Amino acid sequence: MEFDQELSQRAAQNLRYLREKRPLVHNITNFVVMNYTANVLLAVGASPVMAHAGEEVEEMVSISNALVLNIGTLAPDWIDSMIKAGKMANLLNIPIILDPVGSGATTLRTESARRLINELSIKVVRGNASEVLSLAGNASGTKGVESKHSVDEAYRTAFTLAKELGITIVITGEVDLITDGDRVLRVYNGHELMGFVTGTGCAATAIIGAFLAVDNDPVTASATALAYFGLAGEKGAEKAHAPGSFMTASIDALYEIDDAALEKGAKIIS
Amino acid sequence: MEFDQELSQRAAQNLRYLREKRPLVHNITNFVVMNYTANVLLAVGASPVMAHAGEEVEEMVSISNALVLNIGTLAPDWIDSMIKAGKMANLLNIPIILDPVGSGATTLRTESARRLINELSIKVVRGNASEVLSLAGNASGTKGVESKHSVDEAYRTAFTLAKELGITIVITGEVDLITDGDRVLRVYNGHELMGFVTGTGCAATAIIGAFLAVDNDPVTASATALAYFGLAGEKGAEKAHAPGSFMTASIDALYEIDDAALEKGAKIIS
Amino acid sequence: MEFDQELSQRAAQNLRYLREKRPLVHNITNFVVMNYTANVLLAVGASPVMAHAGEEVEEMVSISNALVLNIGTLAPDWIDSMIKAGKMANLLNIPIILDPVGSGATTLRTESARRLINELSIKVVRGNASEVLSLAGNASGTKGVESKHSVDEAYRTAFTLAKELGITIVITGEVDLITDGDRVLRVYNGHELMGFVTGTGCAATAIIGAFLAVDNDPVTASATALAYFGLAGEKGAEKAHAPGSFMTASIDALYEIDDAALEKGAKIIS
Repeated sequence: MEFDQELSQRAAQNLRYLREKRPLVHNITNFVVMNYTANVLLAVGASPVMAHAGEEVEEMVSISNALVLNIGTLAPDWIDSMIKAGKMANLLNIPIILDPVGSGATTLRTESARRLINELSIKVVRGNASEVLSLAGNASGTKGVESKHSVDEAYRTAFTLAKELGITIVITGEVDLITDGDRVLRVYNGHELMGFVTGTGCAATAIIGAFLAVDNDPVTASATALAYFGLAGEKGAEKAHAPGSFMTASIDALYEIDDAALEKGAKIIS
Repeated sequence: MEFDQELSQRAAQNLRYLREKRPLVHNITNFVVMNYTANVLLAVGASPVMAHAGEEVEEMVSISNALVLNIGTLAPDWIDSMIKAGKMANLLNIPIILDPVGSGATTLRTESARRLINELSIKVVRGNASEVLSLAGNASGTKGVESKHSVDEAYRTAFTLAKELGITIVITGEVDLITDGDRVLRVYNGHELMGFVTGTGCAATAIIGAFLAVDNDPVTASATALAYFGLAGEKGAEKAHAPGSFMTASIDALYEIDDAALEKGAKIIS
Repeated sequence: MEFDQELSQRAAQNLRYLREKRPLVHNITNFVVMNYTANVLLAVGASPVMAHAGEEVEEMVSISNALVLNIGTLAPDWIDSMIKAGKMANLLNIPIILDPVGSGATTLRTESARRLINELSIKVVRGNASEVLSLAGNASGTKGVESKHSVDEAYRTAFTLAKELGITIVITGEVDLITDGDRVLRVYNGHELMGFVTGTGCAATAIIGAFLAVDNDPVTASATALAYFGLAGEKGAEKAHAPGSFMTASIDALYEIDDAALEKGAKIIS
C-alpha cells in the first residue's frame, strides 16, 4: 500500500506545532479514562485540564484551545455542563470534539449524544462503528463500547451523516475512517493490543482534540492525530506483548515519537 | 499441600468459556479503581462497562452478563442506582456480586452494604475479614479498607452469614475463603505485593463477576476466579519486585495465562 | 551545594516512623489522580482511603491520621464535604493539607481554595507558583495547572501569606520552597519527567499529608516528604526515560527507598 506523503508531512507539522504551542485541552470526560487521558495528553505535548462543574466550565473552556466532550459514565448534570462549556466554546471559536461512548447502548447515551450534536457546533465526532450508527438512528445492538456492526454499513452512514450535519465523522477500528461527507481519509496505523487497554478510543479523541488546536482542517487534524496515536501503538507493541506493559510502552512512544518519526511512520490514504 | 484437581480443571474450563463468551460486565464501582478494573477485565478477556446514572443502569444491566456493585467512594444516589440496577438484574437472572469496600468504617458504608444485601438477591459478597464481620453486626474497627480482625473469627462469621443469607461469602486475604454455608473452599494463590496495589480486592470482585457469567455455581466461580487472579499475582511477582512494575506485570499475566497454565497453577482446596 | 544533614536525618526518621505507623490518610481529591494517589500512598507505606460523601466524611476522618483536600475536578457539594471533614479534623487535631489545584484558573477554584483556608485551620498548602499567587489575590493567568509566574514573585508571596495566615506554604517547581513565614527551606530533589505525569503535584501533597501524621512540624514534614518524593523521581529517571515507564519506575522507587537511602539522597537546604 502506498501512503499519502503530503499527509505524512502534515502529521509531522501538526506534531511540531503542537509541541510548540502546548495547547490547553479542556476535557469533560468519563471517570474511567480521566487519568489515562491526562497522561496521554501530557506525553503528546499538550496540557490537559479536567473540569465538569457547571460553575466553572465556561471560564475553563475560555482559556483552553480545544474542548473534548466524552459521554462515558454519563449523568444528566454532566450533559448540562457539556452544553454550557460547548456554547462558550462555540462563541469563542474553540474547536469541539465529541466521543459518544456507548451511544446506542442506552437511551440516555444515544439521546445525550444527539442533543450535544444538535445544540452545539461540533467539529469532529469520533466513535466506533456501533456508536456512529446509533447517531444516525440505525438500529443498534451495541455491546458496551464495542462494535458489532459491519464496518461497511458504518462507513456509508458516516459519509451521509457528515454531509448532513456538517461534522467530520471519524470511525476508529482496524482501519480508521475519516470523512466530512466530501473527502474520505483512511488511517492504517494501530495495533490490536490497543483494544485490550481501556480508554484507547477516548485517548484517540483527546489527541484529535489537541490536533484541532493546531490544524484548522478537522479532516487532516483527525487523520494525522490517529496516525500518530496508531504509530505509538505499533511502537509500543514492538516492546510489549501484553496489555499492562503495552499501555506503558505506548505512552512512552507518544512522548518519544518526533516529527521525523511520525512523517516516516504515518499510514494515511486519501 | 495437595490441591483439588477437579477444581483446577474447573478453573481452566471457566477461563476458556470466559474467553469464548467475552461476557459484558456492568460495574457500578468506585472512582479509585474504575480504570484498573476495566483494564483487568479486558486483560481477563471480558468486556467491561461502567455506568452509574439512574437513568441508564437498568438498560445497561439488561445487556450485561454480570453486575458488580462496589461501595467504595460511595454516595447515596449511587446506592439508589445500585438498587435499581440490581432489581433489574434479579428480574433477568443476571448474577450480582457485591464488594462492601470499607463496610464497618462508616455508618453509611455499613448500612448501604446491608441495604443492598437485604433488597437484592446477591450471589456473592467478597470482602476482607473486617468488612465481612461488619455485615454480621460484629463490632468493627476497620482501618480504611484493611482488616484487623482475626481471620478465624471472620471465617466463622462468613459460614454463619452465608447459611443465613443464602449468599456465597468470600473473604480474601493471605488465604482466600469461599463458603456458601455448606461447602468451604480455600485458595492459596496470591502474593503479598497485591496489598501494595490499590484496588486488587475490587479487581478480584470484578473477575469473580466475570466468572459468574460462565459458571452458575457461585462457590466454584469465586474460587476459580481467585485462583486465576492470585496466579497472575504470583507470575507478576516473578518479574517485578515493587508495586508499580508489579501492577503492570500482573495485568500482563492475566492476559498471558491460558487455561493450561491456570489448570497447572491453581491452588484450591476443598 | 551542601545539603542540611540534620534535615536528611529528619527525612530518614520520618520515613521510618511512617512505615511503622502506617497512617491512614483520608483523601477528598480529584477524579484524575485518585488511583495514582492511592498507589503512591501504598508504595510510601501509608494506608489511603478516599471518601467524599457528606454522610460519611466526618466518621472517616475521625479514624484517620491526616486529611488531604484537593480541589481538582471540583464541584460545590465536594467543597461542603471538605469543610465538614475539615471541621472534624480540626476538632480532633488531625492535620490538614490543601492542594489548591487550578486556583486562579476559575472563580470557583480560587474562591473555594480561599474558603477552605478561611473556614478551616490548615497546616500546609501546597501548589505551584500560580496557584499560590492566586491565594494572595495576585492577578493570575493560570494555564490549567501550570505556572507562568515568576518564581521569585511567588516566593515573596508565599512568605507573606504564610506569616499572615499562620499556614506553611509550599511551592513546588524546579526547586521546592517551604516556608512558614519565618523559616524557609528549599528542596532540590526531583526530575523534569515528573511534569509529564499527571498528578505528581497531587501525589506530593498526599505524601506530605502522610508525613504530617508522623512529624508535628509542618515545615520539616513538608520538606522531608518532598525530598523523598523528588528522590523517587530521580531514581525513576535512572531506569526510565519516558513518562509511562517513568511513572511505574518512580512508584517502584517510593517503595524501594529506605531510610538510609533517603538520608543519603535528600537535598534540603535551610
